[in-house]
Amino acid sequence: MTATARFISFEGIDGSGKSTQARLLADSLRADGTEVVLTREPGGSPGAEEIRSLLLTGDTDRWSARTEILLFTAARRDHLEKTVLPALDAGRTVISDRFADSTRVYQGATRGDLRHMVDQLHTLMIGREPDLTFIIDMDPATALRRGLARSSGEDRFEDMGLPFQETLRHGFLSLARANTDRCVVIDGNRDPAAVASEIRAHL
Amino acid sequence: MTATARFISFEGIDGSGKSTQARLLADSLRADGTEVVLTREPGGSPGAEEIRSLLLTGDTDRWSARTEILLFTAARRDHLEKTVLPALDAGRTVISDRFADSTRVYQGATRGDLRHMVDQLHTLMIGREPDLTFIIDMDPATALRRGLARSSGEDRFEDMGLPFQETLRHGFLSLARANTDRCVVIDGNRDPAAVASEIRAHL
Ligand SMILES: Nc1ncnc2c1ncn2[C@@H]1O[C@H](COP(=O)(O)OP(=O)(O)OP(=O)(O)O)[C@@H](O)[C@H]1O
Ligand SMILES: Nc1ncnc2c1ncn2[C@@H]1O[C@H](COP(=O)(O)OP(=O)(O)OP(=O)(O)O)[C@@H](O)[C@H]1O
Ligand SMILES: [Mg+2]
Ligand SMILES: [Mg+2]
Repeated sequence: MTATARFISFEGIDGSGKSTQARLLADSLRADGTEVVLTREPGGSPGAEEIRSLLLTGDTDRWSARTEILLFTAARRDHLEKTVLPALDAGRTVISDRFADSTRVYQGATRGDLRHMVDQLHTLMIGREPDLTFIIDMDPATALRRGLARSSGEDRFEDMGLPFQETLRHGFLSLARANTDRCVVIDGNRDPAAVASEIRAHL
Repeated sequence: MTATARFISFEGIDGSGKSTQARLLADSLRADGTEVVLTREPGGSPGAEEIRSLLLTGDTDRWSARTEILLFTAARRDHLEKTVLPALDAGRTVISDRFADSTRVYQGATRGDLRHMVDQLHTLMIGREPDLTFIIDMDPATALRRGLARSSGEDRFEDMGLPFQETLRHGFLSLARANTDRCVVIDGNRDPAAVASEIRAHL
């Protein structure tokens, strides 16, 4: 493993630019000769993608909150073992579009009573955090408009509207305050190149 | 809920007669006017059956031990919430062909180092045991011959042969010794009717 192999995640509310910035960072690092594995959650390995489709298709109330958390954790475990850890071991930088923080914040917003259980389950079954997490923070109304301009067919959370996105935003910000060792908050209310160059400057 | 609504599970090595005895007990109780829900694991609810097919098809090494445990637990949570608890609440007796003890014993046999994790995960995410568990104990060579006479297409564990079944047998017996409050060991080396009448006598 080389000293530069790092595990980086992107987090933030829907439409905040995570996927855009993860791709721009991967491009920028590759241009400098760094080997990068760009991945995403839920999914990121063949098994995890199968679990993702169980999670994101069908009725929204198909799985209870607890079952859903278990399925997300199963997908994350597979992603970690099959994609993330092998890449890090081979000296590659891993950039993940969402990781465990998304589960924490989305579950915290929908089922705050289960938040402690989510943490215990993470400690027991995953036990790994990214080395560096970029939390893209921005105005939810703008992010929602960006998000609605696309149509992914998987807009379960976006469907919940602006007040929910405000709750998520505060969830991500409080998570950043509690994890200053690895979290960096980035202002996402700017054009993609400006956001990307601030992110790149942190590396 | 009526006083007679009980949650009963059947456990034991492959081919020991769990499915046969679960069905015979359900028939016998129904003949006496008891409402019975006969179910099984992994599976037992539509969501859990989908997770079951993720688990039991494809390469045997498709999922790591930890991911597999998470998927079994997700399936069990769905089964518990969608099938077992609603039936008990409605005053019905639930008979489950396998439940959490199978995970404990099979994982104990294949990955003893993860056995404690299996228990912690159960406490955190399931938190319910059957009221009564029949552990059908028998000679593994006879059970294996019975099992091989069928062809289910899901014979992952049976494929592991006789020494593995011996390990499982001892796992179930030691689990019964540790849980005398709910476990009853039944000698399965007899014809089905003899086994069934001993089981029925315990109720
Ligand atoms: N800084 C930006 N300014 C304007 N538009 C942007 C910016 N960043 C991304 N976009 C556009 O907004 C939309 C959402 O961006 P992107 O898909 O990167 O967000 P996301 O955070 O990954 O969303 P999701 O949570 O739904 O996956 C896309 O159409 C993208 O092209
Ligand atoms: N007491 C018995 N004597 C002889 N044969 C039996 C007896 N009980 C069951 N069998 C037969 O043995 C085979 C295995 O029985 P069964 O399917 O009930 O076992 P099982 O414990 O459910 O197996 P598995 O673990 O594979 O689900 C079946 O073909 C069944 O008809
Ligand atoms: Mg995205
Ligand atoms: Mg059976």
